[in-house]
Amino acid sequence: MVVSWLRSRMVSAMMAAAIATGTMAAQPRPASQMEFVNTLMPQPSQLTVGQGWLPVASGFSVRFDKTHDERLDAAVQRDLRRIENQTGAMIRSATSDAAANLTISVDEAGEAVQGLDEDESYTLDITPQTAHLHAATDVGAMRGLETLLQLIQANERGFWLPAVSIQDAPRFRWRGLMIDVGRHFEPVDVIERTLDAMAQVKMNVFHWHLSDDQGFRIESKLYPKLTGMGSDGQYYTQDQAKEVVAYARARGIRVVPEFDIPGHTTSWMVGYPELASAPGPFSIERHFGVFNPVMDPTRESTYEFLDKFLGEMAELFPDAYMHIGGDENNGVEWKNNPKIQAFATAHNLHGTAAIQAYFNQRLLPILTRHSKKMIGWDEVLTPDLPKDVVVQSWRGFDSLAAGAKQGYSGLLSAGYYLDHMDPASAHYRVDPLPANSNLTPEQAARILGGEACMWSEYVGPRTIDSRIWPRTAAIAERLWSPRTVTSEDDMYRRLVVESLRLEQFGLTHISQENSSLRALAGTQQIDPLQPLVAVLEPVDFDTRSNWSEHHGVTTLSPFDNLVDALPPDPPSRHDFGDLMSTYLEDPIGHPDIEAALAQTFRSWSADPRSMELLSGSPQLATALPRAHQLAELGAMGLQALSFLSSGTPAPPGWRARKLALLDEAQKPVALTRFTVLDAMRALVNEVH
Amino acid sequence: MVVSWLRSRMVSAMMAAAIATGTMAAQPRPASQMEFVNTLMPQPSQLTVGQGWLPVASGFSVRFDKTHDERLDAAVQRDLRRIENQTGAMIRSATSDAAANLTISVDEAGEAVQGLDEDESYTLDITPQTAHLHAATDVGAMRGLETLLQLIQANERGFWLPAVSIQDAPRFRWRGLMIDVGRHFEPVDVIERTLDAMAQVKMNVFHWHLSDDQGFRIESKLYPKLTGMGSDGQYYTQDQAKEVVAYARARGIRVVPEFDIPGHTTSWMVGYPELASAPGPFSIERHFGVFNPVMDPTRESTYEFLDKFLGEMAELFPDAYMHIGGDENNGVEWKNNPKIQAFATAHNLHGTAAIQAYFNQRLLPILTRHSKKMIGWDEVLTPDLPKDVVVQSWRGFDSLAAGAKQGYSGLLSAGYYLDHMDPASAHYRVDPLPANSNLTPEQAARILGGEACMWSEYVGPRTIDSRIWPRTAAIAERLWSPRTVTSEDDMYRRLVVESLRLEQFGLTHISQENSSLRALAGTQQIDPLQPLVAVLEPVDFDTRSNWSEHHGVTTLSPFDNLVDALPPDPPSRHDFGDLMSTYLEDPIGHPDIEAALAQTFRSWSADPRSMELLSGSPQLATALPRAHQLAELGAMGLQALSFLSSGTPAPPGWRARKLALLDEAQKPVALTRFTVLDAMRALVNEVH
Repeated sequence: MVVSWLRSRMVSAMMAAAIATGTMAAQPRPASQMEFVNTLMPQPSQLTVGQGWLPVASGFSVRFDKTHDERLDAAVQRDLRRIENQTGAMIRSATSDAAANLTISVDEAGEAVQGLDEDESYTLDITPQTAHLHAATDVGAMRGLETLLQLIQANERGFWLPAVSIQDAPRFRWRGLMIDVGRHFEPVDVIERTLDAMAQVKMNVFHWHLSDDQGFRIESKLYPKLTGMGSDGQYYTQDQAKEVVAYARARGIRVVPEFDIPGHTTSWMVGYPELASAPGPFSIERHFGVFNPVMDPTRESTYEFLDKFLGEMAELFPDAYMHIGGDENNGVEWKNNPKIQAFATAHNLHGTAAIQAYFNQRLLPILTRHSKKMIGWDEVLTPDLPKDVVVQSWRGFDSLAAGAKQGYSGLLSAGYYLDHMDPASAHYRVDPLPANSNLTPEQAARILGGEACMWSEYVGPRTIDSRIWPRTAAIAERLWSPRTVTSEDDMYRRLVVESLRLEQFGLTHISQENSSLRALAGTQQIDPLQPLVAVLEPVDFDTRSNWSEHHGVTTLSPFDNLVDALPPDPPSRHDFGDLMSTYLEDPIGHPDIEAALAQTFRSWSADPRSMELLSGSPQLATALPRAHQLAELGAMGLQALSFLSSGTPAPPGWRARKLALLDEAQKPVALTRFTVLDAMRALVNEVH
Repeated sequence: MVVSWLRSRMVSAMMAAAIATGTMAAQPRPASQMEFVNTLMPQPSQLTVGQGWLPVASGFSVRFDKTHDERLDAAVQRDLRRIENQTGAMIRSATSDAAANLTISVDEAGEAVQGLDEDESYTLDITPQTAHLHAATDVGAMRGLETLLQLIQANERGFWLPAVSIQDAPRFRWRGLMIDVGRHFEPVDVIERTLDAMAQVKMNVFHWHLSDDQGFRIESKLYPKLTGMGSDGQYYTQDQAKEVVAYARARGIRVVPEFDIPGHTTSWMVGYPELASAPGPFSIERHFGVFNPVMDPTRESTYEFLDKFLGEMAELFPDAYMHIGGDENNGVEWKNNPKIQAFATAHNLHGTAAIQAYFNQRLLPILTRHSKKMIGWDEVLTPDLPKDVVVQSWRGFDSLAAGAKQGYSGLLSAGYYLDHMDPASAHYRVDPLPANSNLTPEQAARILGGEACMWSEYVGPRTIDSRIWPRTAAIAERLWSPRTVTSEDDMYRRLVVESLRLEQFGLTHISQENSSLRALAGTQQIDPLQPLVAVLEPVDFDTRSNWSEHHGVTTLSPFDNLVDALPPDPPSRHDFGDLMSTYLEDPIGHPDIEAALAQTFRSWSADPRSMELLSGSPQLATALPRAHQLAELGAMGLQALSFLSSGTPAPPGWRARKLALLDEAQKPVALTRFTVLDAMRALVNEVH
């Protein structure tokens, strides 16, 4: 079955000398009998491998050089504790400079409120005697400590650090993750473990999408009906928000709040219908899509409300930036309101975009008064927009580049939408500043970085980890590492290791699949389902969206189907594809790989125990056609191997029939899709 | 391998008509084609199965009869949401009485502060048309809703409730779980999910052991140095404590705080050495055991401190009871302090117990003044103790019965120590009021119930779920269900189902094993380890304790070894034992069971992939001898099957050699022990 060869392949890959990425100063060299395996994620800018290793065992000692403040102390304590938990080695403080195994040398604490220009660089030098971490700031030290943790190697002789010399600094200054807690709420503990994971892959901005049509999620003491009537009781108190901001700062992460206006504001209007452009009353939106409710840009009271509310939020969120959304206003309520139309005519505002530009122009001095800079989605980019507004692009690089040419700083999010259920490799290929961009250096400097986006139509607290991780680690690497770090095979090799490291923070992105399968199957013995579920993943966003519309799915619907158990981009896609392409390079020359493929194909036969589990559960029963299709794919695979290895041609029409089967298998069933169809298609096309 | 036959056996057991427990009014009968499988845990007092079933599908509607307050509304909303999450059915409010599928009828809210005499009874009547839940109080309704949830059945035709009639009430009024957060701290989210799980098995007291030598865990505003110097920063704020109390009350659970005095108080004395009987200074205790620090019972200032502190805590914790610990005072510091000895002589107090009795006598009016009743461990039971003090027995039933005869109410905890790593069946056999007790009805009424105890020397947030669950569900059943519910086979049949239900609250007792194994092995592909880890469990408390003493284990040591990954009493013990005893009843007559055993024995051979994983990890490598032993056990098993099925005698000395091997396998290795040795010994002894 799939898992058996996956494991052996992975271990052998890990045992091999590390594949150096393009930018590294030197190939890793074997250090005596101990081989250093580079599983760093993201990859550093510069890495040189030396000779020997530094053991990590009880008595390993640490000291601070130069300054250290409370934040750095706490970060170091946390990270040393992680080393202890991993290795069992009890770490102590060094009694003298000479006796320290690890010296942490930090020049200064860093900015009181972390900003765009926080220095996150560090150097890490490890010899068989000592490790020396140097950083300009606390934040740089945190980045270096994560690298140190990722360098720890284990074999039967114990735990050790390879002798290396690393100089590292991020390529982009803004490396963010957005979570939409409007459509589905996420409790504080989910947010906090996500921040832990972000810090592990050196991300530095948590973009908190705090309001949308479906929910208003942050307590306002000035306007208590915002959550009182617009949240179903699911919101963050101000104390919790402060806790999250502090938790993030402790990990070198900024928190940028988003209040999406003037559209996407139904939840505001439930309690405050006077904000709206239509009479109301309003109720919390339960469906997904683009809706009509939009703030009235013609009333002074709207701006008075926003002034007070945003002022209150400005005190809660110390970051220099505030995100005002600005996306997907369909303009319907503006068009239908004669007063607004008259206002537009009077002010020479032609169309929705012009009215919204007016609205944004009114917002700007409000934000400025509260010492905030504005960010908005693509739509905010209208003529006359001041140049210090940052544009976050969901439309794509062209839109971002156009902004940069006009003088606007920007962030890329197109290509980083986690809810689209794309593979990590697809996100990895998206570069906020591709080599072939025709931007001048000055324009290029305006590309601040990017943000992965976790929109939450189809995600809840139970499933969010597997929707964000480990794929976001690939995006984090794209934003941190040199542009030339592009090997997808190497990324996937390291991603499986990174995924295990993330699990150690208590993330459930791996364990949730089996936990959900146990609930669906009603038994702890779900092994027979593994060959099938290993090669299934959720359908893309549009397919799920269409299905959901036709099935009356709302924000209140549970996430209790097979699709919610399945992680996107499971290891099977890349590993099976890799195996298949190796085989197809020379079908005669790889008997071991042929055997592994044959074993996998046999495991796809419809095991009666698997069929029994599927049939016994109302939700799993919808996936029964997938089990039959997989059996057909397995039979097809065995036939193809037999034709290719024997050199005999297939019977007439075989290939056409099999390609038709593959087309059929490509169609969504139970909101799932196969991960192996491209590879199977390549196999069938090889048969003549 | 083990898992394959475990699954098939379990499914067939679930498909069979339910085994009625001794007290049930009637055997379940097949309801048309739908068979009701009784997986209720705990079992109700009375259950009658009717004809037919009530479908649970979208549109299922609910209404309240009589009163309902905010607490009941919230509980019902939570539970209906759980039904929706399980079944995908969207539930609605019924528009009229006649249209309701489920009517919830509650007479009154219940006590403002839940007490010993809260009425937790309920009746539940389900027909093919309607379900009717009736309870005297909110708490009774919550108990009934848990039963309703556990009754939901699924097959390929969907979800449904069987027609049943249930009258239910608890056997004991006090059904508790104690968690020691002193030796290792547990975050609020761990406490809250534990409360969810407790409510699911109808437990009603959370006993919070908040202080011990190793840590003081609750904020005092009057004495801030208690946590300031005695907690390593790991403590509950008063707001968090209030949140936990409210969370528990919302689930019909009382919170009884314990402040263990006069011994077990090192952490108090770090900040307040004036409380101590020895000069100090004191530091937080890092080791485990019984230590000398004890409060000075001769100083008035001690009682002034306790009066103020306990008064502060009395306001925080509304329960009528407060636990003062009172255990394991070794008297050393009292003996060594001439002033205390002089005081004892002057007051005619002979020995440590007498001095402690004096201390308790001084405490009583303090508690009374703060409207609290006292509970303490066995040691508080001394002459002249007022009869309204409750005694919690860690010594055993005899001690409890002796108290009851003297007029004291009591709780049993001996036999319910979860840290001892006993199987669920052992706890299940312990009855706080055995049939053969010679107590009068009046004395018997003083046995209030019992408490499972999670002492935390060797447990942390990551591992606590699997140490508490699912075994505590067996204790919960002992305390709720009629005395005559005693079938261990039936308990285990239902425990595997209950375990899955508990997982749905986000408990990690199942998933943590593989999560930890992935971390130890450094790969996601841990399948080869399964045959070995499935038959291993942690050694008992004493063995681990001795090992830990010799290896310098402290409160700061990580839980990162194989033993911490393994759950106690895994399914293999009962299921393999069951299989083996069925086989041994008639070794010739069960070829299917012989085949299952043979398959299991073959899976125990030392798979090279498993050996590679074990060798590659410093922590797993310590368990390599177990892999070799398991291979020997497998070979032994195959030989024994062959002798028994062929009727040929074993070679001379075979049995003696194999019994010696079993003795060897019985010894602890890497803090693990095998779950299958009793069954293997029975097999070998059958060979002649």
